[in-house]
Amino acid sequence: MKKFEIAVIPGDGIGKEVVPAALDVLQTVADVHGGIQFDWTEFPWNCDYYLEHGKMMPDNGLEILQGFDGIFLGAIGNPQLVPDHVSLWGLLIKIRREFEQVINIRPAKCMKGIRSPLVNPNDFDLIVVRENSEGEYSEIGGRIHRGEDEIAVQNAIFTRKGVERAMRYAFELAKKRRGHVTSATKSNGIFHSMPFWDEVFNDVKKDYREIESAAFHIDALAAFFVTRPQIFDVIVASNLFGDILTDLGGAIMGSIGIAPAANINLNGKYPSMFEPVHGSAPDIYGKGIANPIGQIWTAKMMLDHFGEDELGKKMLEVLEEVTADGIKTPDIGGNASTREVANEVCRRLKAL
Amino acid sequence: MKKFEIAVIPGDGIGKEVVPAALDVLQTVADVHGGIQFDWTEFPWNCDYYLEHGKMMPDNGLEILQGFDGIFLGAIGNPQLVPDHVSLWGLLIKIRREFEQVINIRPAKCMKGIRSPLVNPNDFDLIVVRENSEGEYSEIGGRIHRGEDEIAVQNAIFTRKGVERAMRYAFELAKKRRGHVTSATKSNGIFHSMPFWDEVFNDVKKDYREIESAAFHIDALAAFFVTRPQIFDVIVASNLFGDILTDLGGAIMGSIGIAPAANINLNGKYPSMFEPVHGSAPDIYGKGIANPIGQIWTAKMMLDHFGEDELGKKMLEVLEEVTADGIKTPDIGGNASTREVANEVCRRLKAL
Ligand SMILES: CC(C)[C@H](C(=O)O)[C@@H](O)C(=O)O
Ligand SMILES: CC(C)[C@H](C(=O)O)[C@@H](O)C(=O)O
Repeated sequence: MKKFEIAVIPGDGIGKEVVPAALDVLQTVADVHGGIQFDWTEFPWNCDYYLEHGKMMPDNGLEILQGFDGIFLGAIGNPQLVPDHVSLWGLLIKIRREFEQVINIRPAKCMKGIRSPLVNPNDFDLIVVRENSEGEYSEIGGRIHRGEDEIAVQNAIFTRKGVERAMRYAFELAKKRRGHVTSATKSNGIFHSMPFWDEVFNDVKKDYREIESAAFHIDALAAFFVTRPQIFDVIVASNLFGDILTDLGGAIMGSIGIAPAANINLNGKYPSMFEPVHGSAPDIYGKGIANPIGQIWTAKMMLDHFGEDELGKKMLEVLEEVTADGIKTPDIGGNASTREVANEVCRRLKAL
Repeated sequence: MKKFEIAVIPGDGIGKEVVPAALDVLQTVADVHGGIQFDWTEFPWNCDYYLEHGKMMPDNGLEILQGFDGIFLGAIGNPQLVPDHVSLWGLLIKIRREFEQVINIRPAKCMKGIRSPLVNPNDFDLIVVRENSEGEYSEIGGRIHRGEDEIAVQNAIFTRKGVERAMRYAFELAKKRRGHVTSATKSNGIFHSMPFWDEVFNDVKKDYREIESAAFHIDALAAFFVTRPQIFDVIVASNLFGDILTDLGGAIMGSIGIAPAANINLNGKYPSMFEPVHGSAPDIYGKGIANPIGQIWTAKMMLDHFGEDELGKKMLEVLEEVTADGIKTPDIGGNASTREVANEVCRRLKAL
C-alpha cells in the first residue's frame, strides 16, 4: 500500500467548492485502485483566516506543510476582504517560493465535449513551462514621494540559474512529447531582462540539437494562441508571461475553469503544490456552479507526480467522457452543478 | 487648403510594402477631397541603415523629425541583422519617448468581411489606451556577474503622472463612447507597481462618476478577449499589458495585419506618430502579400488626429466594403496582393 499525506488548502471562493469535489474523486480513485491511500489534512487558511488572525497562515505554517507529500490547493484571493497582493504573497506565492517550487507546468489541449471558442482549434495540445520562482514576481522595489510626485519602482530579477532551469525542464519535457520548444520573449521592448532570457535560451538549446526551437515575442505568441495554437508543443515562459499564456490556454480550451497546473519542487526538499489555473471567482462563489474539472485535472497531475501516470491517464479519460456526455457546468455550456459533475466522475471511475 | 507635412519611415520588412500602399490611399483621399494636401518626406531609417551607419537614424534624426506634422511609420525590426532591443530602442521607442507620445491608442472591432477566429465574436468594439512612456519598457536595470552566476535586473518605473494621464485619457475617451473603462492590472502578482496602479485608478475614477469601471488582472483580461470581448469598451493598460492586449485584439479581429494604432503627443510640442500594431514580419516580406489594412486604418487614425474625422470615417467604410467584397490578402482568407487591396481602396474612394 502506497500512502500519501496530503495537505489540503481549499482557500477562498470557489476553491471551497471545487476542492471537496476533487477530493471525492481522488478518494474514489484510491478506493477503486486498492493499492494507494491518501491521508487528508485540511487547513482553513484564506482571506477569512486573515481577517481573524492578521495573517494568511500561522507563523509556523510552512513548517507544518513541510512534512506532507503534496499540497492540494484551491484558490486564494478575495479582494473585498484583503488586498490581492497581501493575500497572495502571504500564502500562494510564499509557498511557491519557500518550497522552491521553481517550475509551474500547465497543459492546455482540445478536450472532447468541450467546445473551444475558436472556430478552428485544430486539436492543439500544448504545455506551458512557467518559471515559478523569480522574474516579474518580485518583492524588490518600492515607492517614493506622495501625491502627484509618487513613483513606484518594480524590479524584475532574472538569474541564469532560474532561467536555465526552466528552459532545461522544457527541453527535457519536449523530448517526451513532440520535440519542439518555443521561448516566450519580449526582447524588443523589455530592455535588460529579455535579451538576457534570449541569450540563455540560445545557450541551452545547443545542448538539445534534436529538439526544434523557436522564439516569439509575447505579444505575437499570445495572438498565435488564438490564431494557430496547434503550432505549439512546449512553451517556456517567465513567471508573468507564463501566467498570461496559461489563462489564454484555458480560454481556448473552452473555460479557464478546466485548466490544471502543478507547482513542482525539483530538489526533493519540499512538497510540490497542485492548484488549478483559475482563481477564487468570488462572483460565482456559493452558487454551486463552479467547474470542478480544473481542480480534478490538477489532482490527476498530482497522481502523475507521484508516479501513478496510469491512474492519471484513466482519470483524464473519464473526465473527457463525462463532458462529452454533456454533464458539465454552465461555463462550458451545460447545466450540471459542481457536485453533479464530480459525482458522475466518481460513478464512472467505480464502474471501470 | 490645409497642408500636412508628413515624415514617412517605412522601416523594415513589410513596412516597406504596406507604407507605400497606404500612402497611395492617403494621396487619393487628398486628391478626392480637394481641400487637404500632404507633403511626404521619406526617411530610409531601418536595420539596413544601421548596418551601414552603426545607428538606426542620424544623430540629428529627432531634430529633423520635429518639424513635421506627423510621422507615418511602418514597422521596425530585423533580428537577423540587428538585435531587436537595439533596433527598437534606437528608433521606434526612442521617438515615442523623446517626442512625448505618452499615449498609444489601439482600437479593435469586428470588421465586415473579415472572419474572426472566434465562434462568437459578438460584434465587439473596444479600444485599448496603452500607457506609452514608461512602465515595463525601461532602460533602467542591468546585469551583474558572468556565466552561471549572471543576474539581470529590469526595473519597471510607474509615475503617478504617467499612470494618471493614461487613465484620464481613457475616461475622457469613454465619455465619447459607451461609458465604460476597464483597468488592466496584476496587483496579485506584481508586488509594487500594480497595487500602485490600482490606487491611481481608484482615485481617478472618482472624478468620472458617470463612467462605469472595472479592474481585471491581465491574465483573466487576456482570456476575456477570447471568451467575451464584447464586454469591453475602453481598456487602460500599462505599456507591456497594452502591447499584449492589442496583439490579441488583432488576433480576434481576424489578423494582426489589420490592427491600427496611434502614438499620441498630448502637449503639442512634438508630432504624433502613426504605426500599426503589427511588426515587420520578415518571414513574409518580399512576397507582396502583406495585409495593408492595418497601415491604411492607421492612416485613417492620422486623419482623425488632424481633425478630419469625416474623411477618416469614409476611409474605414471603404476598407470594410473592400474586404466584404473579398478583395483581401491571404492572412484573412483572400488571395489579393498588398497592391491589389490598396488599388481597390483607391478606386472606390475615387468613385465616392
Ligand atoms: C516592436 C515593439 C518594441 C513594439 C512594442 O512592444 O511596443 C510593438 O510590439 C508594438 O506593439 O508597437
Ligand atoms: C493569483 C495569482 C497570484 C496567480 C499568479 O499570477 O501566479 C494566478 O494567476 C496563477 O496563475 O496561479
